[in-house]
Amino acid sequence: MALGVKHLFGLHGVSRDDISLILDTADSFREVLDRPIRIVPTLKGVAVLNLFYEDSTRTRISFELAERRLSAEVVTFAKGSSSVSKGESLRDTVRNIEAMKIDIIVVRHKSPGTPQFLADITRCRIVNAGDGSHEHPTQALLDLMTMRRHFGTIEGLRVLIVGDILHSRVARSDIWGLKTMGAEVDVCGPPTLMPVSMDAFGVKCYHDLDRIIDSYDVVYMLRIQRERQAGGLIPSTREYTKLFGLTPQRADRMKEGAMVMHPGPINRGIELDYGVADSSRSLILDQVTNGEAVRMAVLFLLSGRSDT
Amino acid sequence: MALGVKHLFGLHGVSRDDISLILDTADSFREVLDRPIRIVPTLKGVAVLNLFYEDSTRTRISFELAERRLSAEVVTFAKGSSSVSKGESLRDTVRNIEAMKIDIIVVRHKSPGTPQFLADITRCRIVNAGDGSHEHPTQALLDLMTMRRHFGTIEGLRVLIVGDILHSRVARSDIWGLKTMGAEVDVCGPPTLMPVSMDAFGVKCYHDLDRIIDSYDVVYMLRIQRERQAGGLIPSTREYTKLFGLTPQRADRMKEGAMVMHPGPINRGIELDYGVADSSRSLILDQVTNGEAVRMAVLFLLSGRSDT
Amino acid sequence: MALGVKHLFGLHGVSRDDISLILDTADSFREVLDRPIRIVPTLKGVAVLNLFYEDSTRTRISFELAERRLSAEVVTFAKGSSSVSKGESLRDTVRNIEAMKIDIIVVRHKSPGTPQFLADITRCRIVNAGDGSHEHPTQALLDLMTMRRHFGTIEGLRVLIVGDILHSRVARSDIWGLKTMGAEVDVCGPPTLMPVSMDAFGVKCYHDLDRIIDSYDVVYMLRIQRERQAGGLIPSTREYTKLFGLTPQRADRMKEGAMVMHPGPINRGIELDYGVADSSRSLILDQVTNGEAVRMAVLFLLSGRSDT
Repeated sequence: MALGVKHLFGLHGVSRDDISLILDTADSFREVLDRPIRIVPTLKGVAVLNLFYEDSTRTRISFELAERRLSAEVVTFAKGSSSVSKGESLRDTVRNIEAMKIDIIVVRHKSPGTPQFLADITRCRIVNAGDGSHEHPTQALLDLMTMRRHFGTIEGLRVLIVGDILHSRVARSDIWGLKTMGAEVDVCGPPTLMPVSMDAFGVKCYHDLDRIIDSYDVVYMLRIQRERQAGGLIPSTREYTKLFGLTPQRADRMKEGAMVMHPGPINRGIELDYGVADSSRSLILDQVTNGEAVRMAVLFLLSGRSDT
Repeated sequence: MALGVKHLFGLHGVSRDDISLILDTADSFREVLDRPIRIVPTLKGVAVLNLFYEDSTRTRISFELAERRLSAEVVTFAKGSSSVSKGESLRDTVRNIEAMKIDIIVVRHKSPGTPQFLADITRCRIVNAGDGSHEHPTQALLDLMTMRRHFGTIEGLRVLIVGDILHSRVARSDIWGLKTMGAEVDVCGPPTLMPVSMDAFGVKCYHDLDRIIDSYDVVYMLRIQRERQAGGLIPSTREYTKLFGLTPQRADRMKEGAMVMHPGPINRGIELDYGVADSSRSLILDQVTNGEAVRMAVLFLLSGRSDT
Repeated sequence: MALGVKHLFGLHGVSRDDISLILDTADSFREVLDRPIRIVPTLKGVAVLNLFYEDSTRTRISFELAERRLSAEVVTFAKGSSSVSKGESLRDTVRNIEAMKIDIIVVRHKSPGTPQFLADITRCRIVNAGDGSHEHPTQALLDLMTMRRHFGTIEGLRVLIVGDILHSRVARSDIWGLKTMGAEVDVCGPPTLMPVSMDAFGVKCYHDLDRIIDSYDVVYMLRIQRERQAGGLIPSTREYTKLFGLTPQRADRMKEGAMVMHPGPINRGIELDYGVADSSRSLILDQVTNGEAVRMAVLFLLSGRSDT
């Protein structure tokens, strides 16, 4: 079986069949992760380059582990984005790296569209590990996987995404993926952190969390960037918590069986209460484990090794 | 065979049987290191995370090599400790990493007790690679291994540790390990670099190196931290060398067959003379090689793979 | 088959037989790189340390990939050279690392002669990955390989090296290698960037690129270091391009079948025109791929595994 897409730039435009194939494949890699010997020879002799122009401990470790567990040859290049400000420099760097016979590039970069740019100039398969405020597709896929495993299906699920929708690549990718898989998605946050219109996404916007929190199966809390406060977009973190934080009181008002998710790292006590994050309502650690499986699935399916 | 301990936080409280098992296992890995092909499949599919919040070239390289030679999947995260000042951040980082299905964490951190803290919040096996001025158990184990291989036994050996006892995690771990294995240990250094009392350790303190140097089988020189001078704890490095440095003259007065050890890196010409460090009295490079074997043994025994 | 040399410090003094053996071996590794599964078990159980005291993304990635594709155990230590200013510190570091049972050290350092120094104090095999303005032998070997594969032979080729000859380790290594293999080499650049005499190398110096460009089979453009302008050695980059840049006009005047090479990274638009770099006259990406093969060959031949 093969994916319809050659690269994973985002979930926008990725078909239901492709997403289902990735999630099914991830389910079988999830079984590998539950074994005592968590390694398969699947990508032996395939070279993967991790190109992290933006700092990211967790995502980088998650990808590196996924690659090693597939037995790929792994090289990582992590660098402050300042030193690669010029597109031309990135272009030459990547074309050179391709000439070293790299098969797959996993890239994180602050500029939206960088993964597409790399695909245009090389024959490597590209996995977007986050490009500015554009998309973060493996995060969304692990979110979908976590919901599908917990609820049995994504179809018909009601999901509320809470927080800084405007700047969030996670929100963007999750909305595309959830819509494609048949979920209903709404968003909630301060007006200053909302896009002008979410109509294009088929998503309703709310600003009063308390009024709506009891009608969703999943409440997905986004990380609040404290820099937003300096930028005047939120009044104070205390005020933010009061209005949009998932406090124990709010968690108690969630639907029976409703679950809490968060992409990490959590600002504990700000957008998410300590106890709620660790409660039986939380799927947060499942998300992390599923992230390993989803990344293994994406790398395997894009490598072409699955085609035969 | 299995260890009595589940983690290696330090040598305090580790039994003679456990230490002997580690040293016996290390002896057999030492043979692997003397082969032309220095790799075994022992930890294939086991994931090890090196979490170095304190800079350490040698210890990090030594652990990484040991892990790769056991065929483990290795991911390293090295970072200045400044950015992880808050315990909560470390807690979330590590619980997330655990969810990626990590088996063993090797941790170095400036805060004493960090390894124990990680063990409390995860199911990973923890190896302490140095926690502040608390313990550095793999250093002590490689020291024990080096003495046992050279002298045949540790029981009854007379060991003198010289230098900054007060701040040294190496001294602390060595004292626990040596006492457990039946050696006699004394310490020598300037009063400002000594704990108030060493009675709890069953160790005698001296301040006049020349008077006692001829009665020990091992003279273990600690690295002097030059920052201590700024802190007013030593008058000058020249003065320190005069009183506590292992000069050729002092080395000549050591017992016949007595050996010099040092945990590295050496301040050559300060606590240890150039020539003495490279002389036939020196076990310093043996210590480094044995460090590889001891780290392989500890990782193997903690992994649970040895139980069957 | 075995090399006459035990280390690769530079191409000065390396025999025609040794260079031919490396290029032949590299040709067979080039075939491995063209397979879908680009890995061989050749150096399994051999430990390689990459010691990069000077920043170098491409060379480091190229070596790391070559090592992993040979199945070696790889540890990399990259560091600003400031922190290892004292020779003594490097000496102790490397002797310690050797004691960890390292077989091969790949070293880049700003001080000429560092690789020789490491060979003097350890039993490891040393590969020079660039030492100040002295030599960069694997770059020259990949250049030789690229010319031999393109033209069939190096004997009798006419090669012009253009740019900052004075400070270039690439120029130095290329001249030694090309002369040994029977090529004719001339150099061209501003008088301020030329050695006083190139007679010792048997090389003619020119300062007027336009007069001579039509008589060479290979025009090898060096990267211009922009710092040279601050140092007063070139008037301006615009002026430099006017006199010594490979513009489309100049490229058109090259001999039929003549090719352009560059060690990378290119200052596009300065020493080399954008279009020329990507034209059918350019061997630049071949150089990069051949770099992988040459590094695999050098590591394999120095490891001693080829002797049996």
